[in-house]
Amino acid sequence: MIVTVTLNPALDLTYPITHLVPHRTHRVSAVSERAGGKGLNVARVLHALGEPVLATGLLGGPTGAFVARLLDAEGVPSSFVPVAGETRRTVAVVDAADATGFWEPGPVVTTAEWSRFVDHFGRLIRGAPVVALCGSLPRGVPIDGYAHLTHLAAEAGVPVLLDTSGPALAHGLTAGPTVTKPNAAELADLLSAVAGAAPADPPSGVPHAEPADPSTGTTSAAEPSVPRSGLTSAAVRGLTSGAVVVTDGVAGLRAITPDAEFHCVPPRPVTGNPTGAGDACAAALARGMRDGTAWPALLADAVALGAAAVASPVAGAFDHTVYQDFRELGGIPC
Amino acid sequence: MIVTVTLNPALDLTYPITHLVPHRTHRVSAVSERAGGKGLNVARVLHALGEPVLATGLLGGPTGAFVARLLDAEGVPSSFVPVAGETRRTVAVVDAADATGFWEPGPVVTTAEWSRFVDHFGRLIRGAPVVALCGSLPRGVPIDGYAHLTHLAAEAGVPVLLDTSGPALAHGLTAGPTVTKPNAAELADLLSAVAGAAPADPPSGVPHAEPADPSTGTTSAAEPSVPRSGLTSAAVRGLTSGAVVVTDGVAGLRAITPDAEFHCVPPRPVTGNPTGAGDACAAALARGMRDGTAWPALLADAVALGAAAVASPVAGAFDHTVYQDFRELGGIPC
Repeated sequence: MIVTVTLNPALDLTYPITHLVPHRTHRVSAVSERAGGKGLNVARVLHALGEPVLATGLLGGPTGAFVARLLDAEGVPSSFVPVAGETRRTVAVVDAADATGFWEPGPVVTTAEWSRFVDHFGRLIRGAPVVALCGSLPRGVPIDGYAHLTHLAAEAGVPVLLDTSGPALAHGLTAGPTVTKPNAAELADLLSAVAGAAPADPPSGVPHAEPADPSTGTTSAAEPSVPRSGLTSAAVRGLTSGAVVVTDGVAGLRAITPDAEFHCVPPRPVTGNPTGAGDACAAALARGMRDGTAWPALLADAVALGAAAVASPVAGAFDHTVYQDFRELGGIPC
Repeated sequence: MIVTVTLNPALDLTYPITHLVPHRTHRVSAVSERAGGKGLNVARVLHALGEPVLATGLLGGPTGAFVARLLDAEGVPSSFVPVAGETRRTVAVVDAADATGFWEPGPVVTTAEWSRFVDHFGRLIRGAPVVALCGSLPRGVPIDGYAHLTHLAAEAGVPVLLDTSGPALAHGLTAGPTVTKPNAAELADLLSAVAGAAPADPPSGVPHAEPADPSTGTTSAAEPSVPRSGLTSAAVRGLTSGAVVVTDGVAGLRAITPDAEFHCVPPRPVTGNPTGAGDACAAALARGMRDGTAWPALLADAVALGAAAVASPVAGAFDHTVYQDFRELGGIPC
């Protein structure tokens, strides 16, 4: 089964209100509680596609137990390593205009806890067809944590999909994950930051763009295209020995592999909720990596699943009708 | 032991941030998690005073389990009745200017759950010297819930302290709790609302003032005095056969009993956090009711404990030095 790793999951709380007024008290009429985190969304989408999947990562405290319970209720198989710190909450207060977010800091992971996770990871990936490393690193995990996990997976012969941002992305790329899936803004930031540095030695403290929500993807078929000045194939190839798939909203997906380049644009725009669309793309990529799907078909499937996620109101889910519709239309290769 | 009832407890989360900007995302550097609710604060203060106390009420879901765990960690004895609904959270986002609050709605209590609580209450109060009924009623609990509990306590010979607001206060008063402790604003609202109605039959849908935080008191020695036009002894006596202690910030406490009136003003002002000061007053009143303390000494102790709570940064706690200082100074009887 595909293994998805979420080292910094969250309990995502959504509070719909009429209008946010600072320094007033607001009665929330209903609360949405979701297990949050990019790797959990990838696992959810794969589970909904009927693909065998196992979610792992770190969970701690009562909030961590709550996240595990929510995931169980959705039927997503999981095997987390407990930590003493408390799993974070994210609170999204949504009024008629937009969302206002509050992100808790999450636990500080000890060296012993990280070692336990690395051991657990080593056992879980035995025989796994693909492992997906997703989202931000909690405090305490070494900044090259994803590079370490990527090396372990490579030794075990397991292909790796990496989906993160900032310094975790910069360091992870150096280990040459099979496929790395940044969005265009994240990758452009990284390229401009490392312009003067050797690609194999990204400086610590690299300035980086954070996704708009640490627990979900932000790139989607509904987003405007980000200017990609400097995002040349050569520059991207200099970052890693693996392939890079760049998600770029309505501009679609671009795959820059060690020896070729592919591009796929959605056949039509989709409006909706872009949160989690990047995670749906990652799920499609992980499945295609498992199946050895050729790049053009793989990108077309990822475009379709990303668009179907935009059409779904919550992250980690997708609209099956839109997905089938897009699969029949096919992506537009460039 | 004194029994405190909290039918609508909460997990109180406090998020300190630099500056709240609507429709942006804010990283919260640290999270304060507290078991919230007026009755829980009363129990905490009594426990800190070394008085035997037992907290009861309704708790549900993972958030309810979390509240119980936090209370256990403070060493406060408790015996809650489980409900299927989820105990609410309150989120207070605190920036340099003030707090912005988000209150979850809390569970809807079923008739069967309420019946189980009433049975549990009947068993717990056997032999209790005093029972304190505190805070708002969750959805599903009959609006005359406190009146029902007051009658049960009276049948068992247990004196009742009632501390609530709005319709729950209006209905509760008709059962004649031994002592009812509204703040001046709550009582003034009630008196103006029932001006044209028979006191024994408060209309449903009575307009009412809610406390600034449903899980904590708002009246304190640091608050300005509320204009008390219409708050005559005769009007107050018309509401209930019991005594009423009105908390009125820096104006102090006023006790209107069936046959006399007492007043006690703090000997000096205290600055700090007024949240929970009313709950500290309630704790002092409950202890004094148990001990048969005469009104002047009882009010002076409640003024001292309320002021000591203002001097403490969190609700449900008090500054022992300020408490001793005020006890030595004594309140100013009027």
